[in-house]
Formats: sequence, C-alpha cells, structure tokens
Amino acid sequence: MATVEAKVFPIEALREFSTRVLLHFGVPKKDASQAADVLASADLRGIDSHGVARLTSYVDLLSEGLINPTPRIKILRSTPSTATIDGDNGLGLVVGPQANEIAMDMAEKAGSGWVSIGNSNHFGIAGYYVLKALERDMIGWAMTNSTKLVTPLWGAERMLGTNPIAIAFPAKEEPPIVVDMATCAAAYGKIEMARRRGESIPEGWGINKHGLDTTNPDDIVAGGCLLPLGSDRERGGQHEAARVVATETNFSSDFDVFVRKSQPGITAYA
Amino acid sequence: MATVEAKVFPIEALREFSTRVLLHFGVPKKDASQAADVLASADLRGIDSHGVARLTSYVDLLSEGLINPTPRIKILRSTPSTATIDGDNGLGLVVGPQANEIAMDMAEKAGSGWVSIGNSNHFGIAGYYVLKALERDMIGWAMTNSTKLVTPLWGAERMLGTNPIAIAFPAKEEPPIVVDMATCAAAYGKIEMARRRGESIPEGWGINKHGLDTTNPDDIVAGGCLLPLGSDRERGGQHEAARVVATETNFSSDFDVFVRKSQPGITAYA
Repeated sequence: MATVEAKVFPIEALREFSTRVLLHFGVPKKDASQAADVLASADLRGIDSHGVARLTSYVDLLSEGLINPTPRIKILRSTPSTATIDGDNGLGLVVGPQANEIAMDMAEKAGSGWVSIGNSNHFGIAGYYVLKALERDMIGWAMTNSTKLVTPLWGAERMLGTNPIAIAFPAKEEPPIVVDMATCAAAYGKIEMARRRGESIPEGWGINKHGLDTTNPDDIVAGGCLLPLGSDRERGGQHEAARVVATETNFSSDFDVFVRKSQPGITAYA
Repeated sequence: MATVEAKVFPIEALREFSTRVLLHFGVPKKDASQAADVLASADLRGIDSHGVARLTSYVDLLSEGLINPTPRIKILRSTPSTATIDGDNGLGLVVGPQANEIAMDMAEKAGSGWVSIGNSNHFGIAGYYVLKALERDMIGWAMTNSTKLVTPLWGAERMLGTNPIAIAFPAKEEPPIVVDMATCAAAYGKIEMARRRGESIPEGWGINKHGLDTTNPDDIVAGGCLLPLGSDRERGGQHEAARVVATETNFSSDFDVFVRKSQPGITAYA
C-alpha cells in the first residue's frame, strides 16, 4: 500500500479542468459548467472521494458511449407537489441539478416538491442538492440508490447500495444544519482513504469475501462488503437494516429530491 | 425482578375497556373510540409496550388535568401540501389521527401532504398513521420527538428523544413494506421487557448514570441512558448521531406526518 502525494489546486482551476474535459465529450457548455460545479462543491466540502478526482469515472462512461452527453429531460408524470422525471440517460451531474430546480419551483408554489428521477446515473454528492435548497431558504432532502456494495444484516454478499441521504435545514440566526451521509457503517471513501494510507479499518465496518469480519481495507475491495449502518445485531443493525432495505426496495429510481419551503417565524420544520 | 403473569383478552374487550375509561374522563365518544383504536392497533401488531397497557399513562395525565379531553384543533398555517396544526393540548391519540386525515386529504389533491403538530402529546405507535395511509393506497410517513431518554454519541446524559420513525409503502402484488422503529440502538420497550423477564441486555444498548456501559436494564431506568442508533463510533454512531440530532433539533413539534399518493403503474416511490 503506497501513499499518494497530494497536490493542491485552486478551485477555479479544477472547475475549468472539469468543464473542458466534459466539453471534449460533447457536453454543452452550460451543462459542463453545471457538472463541474457539483464536483467542485465536493472538493470544497472536503469530500475528496466525490470531487474532481471522480471525474475519471464519468469520463469512462462518456467515452464508452454509455452516457448521453445531450439529454432531453422529460417530466413523465406530475402533481402540484410531485414529479417523475426521465433523465434521458444524461450525466447525473446535469440531470440532478435540473430536477432539483423543478422540485424547488414546485415547493415555491405548492409548499413542497418531490421529484423522482429514472434513467440517470451518479449525481455527485447528495449534499450539493440540499445546499441549493438552503440558498432559497428551503429545507432540502436528497437520496439516491447506488451500486451494490453493502451486505444486509447477517449477510455475506453485496446486495444493497450505500444509498446516501442528505438533508439540510435553514435556521434563523444559527448556521443551517446539513447532514450528508451514506447508510453503511462507514462510507466507501473511508475504505479508500485507509488503503491509500496503508492503515487498517476498525472492526464493524466490513467483511471479507468469505463473510468474515475484517480490518483489512483491501478485503472489502477484493469481493468483500461494507456493513450497513448499525453494523451488527447488538448495535441496532436490525433497525437500520429495515430502513436500508426499505430505501433499496422502494426508492428504485435513481434519486429523489424533496424541497419544502420553510415558513418564516417558526422553527425550521414546523 | 419478578416475572409478570400474562392474561389474554379479546381485542374487542380491550377496545371497549379503553373507550369506557376515556369516556369517564370526558373524552367524547367518537374521540374515545378513535384513541382506543390506536392503542388496540399496537396490541394487534405485538407492540405491547404501546397498547392498552399504556392507557395508564394517558389516564394519569387526564386525571391531573394535564390533557384537554375536548380539544378544538386549529390549522395555524397551510400551503396546498403542508400545514401546521395546533392540537389544543388534546390527546395525541385523537389529535394525531385527525392530522393524519388532513395530510391524506392534501395528498389526494396536491400529490403530497405534510402536517406538523404542536401542542399535543404521546400519539401511540407511529406505525398506526402509516398503516392508515396504506388503506388509501398512499405512502405514509410519521415521526415524533419524545421525552429525553437517549444520550448523544459519546454522551453520558439523557439529551435526545427516542424519536420514532414509521414509513409504509404500498406494493402492487407483494405485501406492503412497513417500518416502525425508534432511533436508539434498542427501543425502550425492549429494556422494559428484559426487566420483566429478569434478563440482562446486550452491550451497546445503554449506559448507567455514570456514563459507563451496562448490561443491567435496571441501570437504564435508574438514571442511565439508551444509546443512539449506531451505538458507538466504530459501528457508525457518528452517522446516526447526525441524523438523530437533526431530528431532535428541527422536528421540534410534536410530530409530523407525510402522506403522498402513490401513482398507479409504477414502483411505489417513482
């Protein structure tokens, strides 16, 4: 396990770099800038695993023609406060922010807005979407399913996504509350970081490909699994398992955004 | 620790009993039946801690004049899909179901409905409200704060509620998914059951009044705390702590109900 030398770039240079890479693959200027903004927001929040370093995975998909660089997003069904959107196989980094705007516009009029997206892909940090809601003095909520990496409670096989959830609440005088988390005992990025540093991981984070506890991060990558939030039976794994399974089973579209306008003069949720 | 002899009653007898007890305290017939129905639903689902056995705590509050037996519920603020309700200090078992109806009626028209309640009290099992949503082919979501019983991650003092969450999703051919859980490592009812049976509890459920790990359920009751969902740092306690604190801080009203109409022909959430 070798350590990687870190280089620091100004955020504008990273934004510019991402934009130009995406332009190269036929992504229109406005969309490329939008996608670069999502990636940069991860770096700015210290979520390095989801920042510009992640650009490579989008590039792989674009270069293999697996992502549509010029999607035409369609609203399939809607009510005053809900919509189901077809992302036309565009970049999640482009489809996501557009859906987010639709949800916030709905919330402006109907009091709340829920948008569910199908036919899209990795949308960057869930936190990006809820931070946008804060800019409009709204409560933001974003969720997504993901590639399977997590074993259910007592399982020995990857069956569930890391299914992140982000929630943000504006506050009056205090700073807003922003939660942005995966629903496993530890985020996959923590495993990657331990590998880079040549460190072991704590018990309860994952199991190896034989279903046995491990503290070696390489075992997780080599066919092992992350453990779900709650970890094991004694620590409430059974509760969390129910919640993760519910998310996995029902939130089967690529992601869902909820935004509700906060009302002045009362605590955030009331 | 003595074991308690269990007696079994027909559910109709329990319903009738609860109704008559509440009538005695001036609760109108319709409301008393409604409250009895919430309690009976807990017994029917095997959540004995929240069933008719819990009637005694409502009786205590009613007999001390701490609950208004004839509340007039008011909508303080509303949008097409959200409302804030004043429960006029009525029984949560009466105010809750009324708010639930308002939320479902909103969802019928606007696609979703969120109702937040203040000035109410213990509303029974959160699961009751989401089961009602299933009857109307809606997704149900209910949450409440509670008396403080849970310590934050690394804490030694009761600071958070058990803050239950219930969610139900209708399914097309499969049975619906119903989640009904507290956001602590183990529900308080599990502690009560261990005490009744004279059993110890697993590590990771709670701490004693000195902030030390304990496997004696009596220690939890005697000034100790429940641990939050996720239990400790190694098992993802840091993630869950963020979520629990967010719930505690923001969901400061007595509870919140969300119901959204599911759309035919697509998976539950889409």
